[in-house]
Amino acid sequence: MSLIPMRAFRMMLNRQCRIKYFRTLNYSNSNNEQGNENNRKNAFNSSHLLVSALISSVGYYFFVTGKKRFAVAEEAKTHVKNDIRTVAGQFRPDLPSYSMKEVSKHGTKENQVWVVYREGVYDITDFIEQHPGGEQIMIAAGSSVEPFWVLYGIHVNDHVFEVLETLRIGNLSKSDIVNVADVGDPYAKDPIRHSALKPANMKPFNAEISPALLCESFITPNELFYVRNHLPVPEINPHSYELELEVEGIDRTAVFSLDDLKKFPKATITATLMCAGNRRAEMKKVKTVKGLDWGPCAIGNATWSGVRLRDLLKQVGVTEDEEILKHVHFEGLDLDVTATQYAASIPIWKAVDRRGDVILAYEMNGVPIPPDHGYPIRVVVPGVAGARNVKWLGKIVVSEKESTSHWQQNDYKGFSPSIDYDNVDFSKAPSIQELPVISAICKPLEGEVVKVENGYINLKGYAWSGGGQQIIRVDLTLDEGKTWHIASLDAQDTALPPQHWAWTLWSAKLPVAPEFKEVEIWCKAVDSCYNTQPERFENIWNFRGVLSNAYHRVKIKLNQ
Amino acid sequence: MSLIPMRAFRMMLNRQCRIKYFRTLNYSNSNNEQGNENNRKNAFNSSHLLVSALISSVGYYFFVTGKKRFAVAEEAKTHVKNDIRTVAGQFRPDLPSYSMKEVSKHGTKENQVWVVYREGVYDITDFIEQHPGGEQIMIAAGSSVEPFWVLYGIHVNDHVFEVLETLRIGNLSKSDIVNVADVGDPYAKDPIRHSALKPANMKPFNAEISPALLCESFITPNELFYVRNHLPVPEINPHSYELELEVEGIDRTAVFSLDDLKKFPKATITATLMCAGNRRAEMKKVKTVKGLDWGPCAIGNATWSGVRLRDLLKQVGVTEDEEILKHVHFEGLDLDVTATQYAASIPIWKAVDRRGDVILAYEMNGVPIPPDHGYPIRVVVPGVAGARNVKWLGKIVVSEKESTSHWQQNDYKGFSPSIDYDNVDFSKAPSIQELPVISAICKPLEGEVVKVENGYINLKGYAWSGGGQQIIRVDLTLDEGKTWHIASLDAQDTALPPQHWAWTLWSAKLPVAPEFKEVEIWCKAVDSCYNTQPERFENIWNFRGVLSNAYHRVKIKLNQ
Repeated sequence: MSLIPMRAFRMMLNRQCRIKYFRTLNYSNSNNEQGNENNRKNAFNSSHLLVSALISSVGYYFFVTGKKRFAVAEEAKTHVKNDIRTVAGQFRPDLPSYSMKEVSKHGTKENQVWVVYREGVYDITDFIEQHPGGEQIMIAAGSSVEPFWVLYGIHVNDHVFEVLETLRIGNLSKSDIVNVADVGDPYAKDPIRHSALKPANMKPFNAEISPALLCESFITPNELFYVRNHLPVPEINPHSYELELEVEGIDRTAVFSLDDLKKFPKATITATLMCAGNRRAEMKKVKTVKGLDWGPCAIGNATWSGVRLRDLLKQVGVTEDEEILKHVHFEGLDLDVTATQYAASIPIWKAVDRRGDVILAYEMNGVPIPPDHGYPIRVVVPGVAGARNVKWLGKIVVSEKESTSHWQQNDYKGFSPSIDYDNVDFSKAPSIQELPVISAICKPLEGEVVKVENGYINLKGYAWSGGGQQIIRVDLTLDEGKTWHIASLDAQDTALPPQHWAWTLWSAKLPVAPEFKEVEIWCKAVDSCYNTQPERFENIWNFRGVLSNAYHRVKIKLNQ
Repeated sequence: MSLIPMRAFRMMLNRQCRIKYFRTLNYSNSNNEQGNENNRKNAFNSSHLLVSALISSVGYYFFVTGKKRFAVAEEAKTHVKNDIRTVAGQFRPDLPSYSMKEVSKHGTKENQVWVVYREGVYDITDFIEQHPGGEQIMIAAGSSVEPFWVLYGIHVNDHVFEVLETLRIGNLSKSDIVNVADVGDPYAKDPIRHSALKPANMKPFNAEISPALLCESFITPNELFYVRNHLPVPEINPHSYELELEVEGIDRTAVFSLDDLKKFPKATITATLMCAGNRRAEMKKVKTVKGLDWGPCAIGNATWSGVRLRDLLKQVGVTEDEEILKHVHFEGLDLDVTATQYAASIPIWKAVDRRGDVILAYEMNGVPIPPDHGYPIRVVVPGVAGARNVKWLGKIVVSEKESTSHWQQNDYKGFSPSIDYDNVDFSKAPSIQELPVISAICKPLEGEVVKVENGYINLKGYAWSGGGQQIIRVDLTLDEGKTWHIASLDAQDTALPPQHWAWTLWSAKLPVAPEFKEVEIWCKAVDSCYNTQPERFENIWNFRGVLSNAYHRVKIKLNQ
């Protein structure tokens, strides 16, 4: 462990990150002078970067609501025929041509905001406020959207192209066109994944396994653990890896190598991690939401070993007896093209509390953390939404304020069903930390034909609650709540609340009347605070589709 | 503070208690030799006292379920005509007479269990297992039920008398009859209460104020704070008051006078206390439950000042660094006729944790705790069910096991809707500690005619969550969830979760369509773990009617 002046280290880190990314991506957005690195850098630096936050999670895309806007899109459809993906950005002889230099003059709202996609030039000025990712769209102002769309693959979507073409104003001069194939793929070095992981999105990679597989094991194997990446997986050399620790406003900074970290006492916890968007696909059926179509398997349970965060914080004088400042930030080493890293924060009490059990993990289920899960160090904040369990940890900052990152401030928050993108004020809701009680039926699956054996069907599933609460009961009904059955809790950790971090696996054998050809199974769990799940998605709907913990309902056909 | 041998103190305490109660009550149950105190004592000591627990909360009464038993009761009704209260226990010429001596021989199940009520003799052997209070009924075996019914006034109930008369086997010999008027009233010295407190039960006293009054003040005035007593209010002399502290199995015992306690640093918290049965009356509408008919006002918010429990525990070497044993018991000085005190326990972590904030309070809202609320010392276990906030605290025991008290083991637990008295196994459910999120509409009231002003109606209410969670949102709907409105959070404590112990008062001004003549308002709250309330009582129904936190629904008439 070595102490270095804070500011110097920070500058060094930022510089390294930027250089790395400018080397990886072969940008086509600044002008046509390829190979001129300085020009490319300048173009980026002048692109109104909102450095404090980053474009968006993969859930953000060019989705447009409102009748008027849809009407325009419909009109565009007739223009561009059916194959929108091929047609979008193609030369249109009815429109004027502009040079890249001309486009680059339209980089502020005052001058209208233009962007380029393939051969197309678009005026997106009026669209900015409808962009789900908000002002972040401005990082492409006056240049090409293509490198960002490579980074956020969700934009490659028929609807996005339809909307885009409604904003078309011209063609890019032939001499300025760069083939998209020349643009480097920041995801090229992502690890190879197990084929059982079904991607909800490829770039960044987000995937879950099948429910039937998930409930087979109390400890989820690393290869089958859901992956929720916001950016490309960074390549980190464990020998040169360093973790920086800073206390804002106070001259207390420390840097730890991986070896330094391993010298601390090793702590192990069994903890379930879950994406706040788990089970989003069900909420989406009520009314559309923005975000990945997660099934019920954006959750997994593992043992995590590493350094206690509180032990590390003691090194800079932050303890539960001296709760300096109010939040602890975690900055990942996964970066976007603007060198902004993924980041999140948790309240100080969770970080210093002896019952908080926050671990800087270097092992997952007894082996080094795999690249997709944060190698070499990820924070495990048990009981708290996956988004705060920052992977590829590069820096910890003790601060008076919450992280200003996009994911802390403008994502991963819950809202009333009455709030949508039109009227949201993100500052009105607290960032999601501890998660509410949830459960799911993993066997059988929706629509499955289930063999009735001697009048019974067999069910399996999981239940979990955040905040260190234990599942005390899982209730099941086949008749919409007229009769409730109690599941058997088959696998549960021995840790007591409020430090019970692991999920519960359950099973049940339920009687079905011989005349039934199909039934709908409902499932709800109760935790050690006696909190239980809400019944229906209608009343907990939120436009980001997070906190989808209504009763799990699975309709099956009976073979009897 | 002085240290005395534990066993000696305990014996002394028990002796004092018993003597006190035998002096207060003028029993008529042992035999007809009134005034012979020794005989009375012996009768009690031989009455198969299950000293470990006590009859019941007032919620327990002779309620009987099952078609067969109802049929018998119906038959009994025709026998006893209409005025069951007058007729019950009256002489019946068709039945034989027994002396008290004969009755006293029937004090065990082997010899059949007989009891006396007025002039009636009853064989309750077959009823014992149906008694909601379970085996506790045996304390009256071979003697009279009357002193117990004086203690637990809920037994004085038409239905109880009806059931009782179905068990009638004879008359008590005329020479053994004692007028009930001779039985002393253990509640005679209960304090005089404010007339705004509407009793749900008189003996023991249980009362709440009106919702409209409740939501008027963030701090509930002491006189208006709900009262939930399980036994008579004990008279305690502050000068001779002593609090004993014991660590089970280890020779660490301490005794503190009130002055000793006041020498510790004074801590103050603002905390809401709520009975786990709050809002039971609503659950009861779905299907009957056992317990007091609480409205939504068995809740109140106060500032509590006193000694931190963790400071006291340090005196006997129990700290968060040395979590000796697993539970902390609290024994009240309120006693039943068997000298068993009200008692409950909490897990050790809550007692020693710096964020647990458990206070041995000697002040409530800046003045000495009133007699109804635990004078001179009550435990305030913030975020935890009222039942664990033991009043008139006499003793603290650090123990390996939970309290064995009736209220810890066989009451204040939550069950699935499929569980009833017929099939309950109390050991299957954890005792209620931290409470789930709840809310209520205090204005307007159910059925109220509300004046619509310029198209709007005004609402007020409260919301709260246990476990130190803060209310982050209150949602309201007038159209069964099609449209949700967000309430204004008007009054809230500044303490952060997980130490946010106080409730939130909210208000809203909601638009109503001019054509509506009546509306049903639904209310739900969301806490800082993003837990929310379940929708309907049907799916959270439990036979004790606790944890009644479904959406609050209030139907009103509109004057417009």
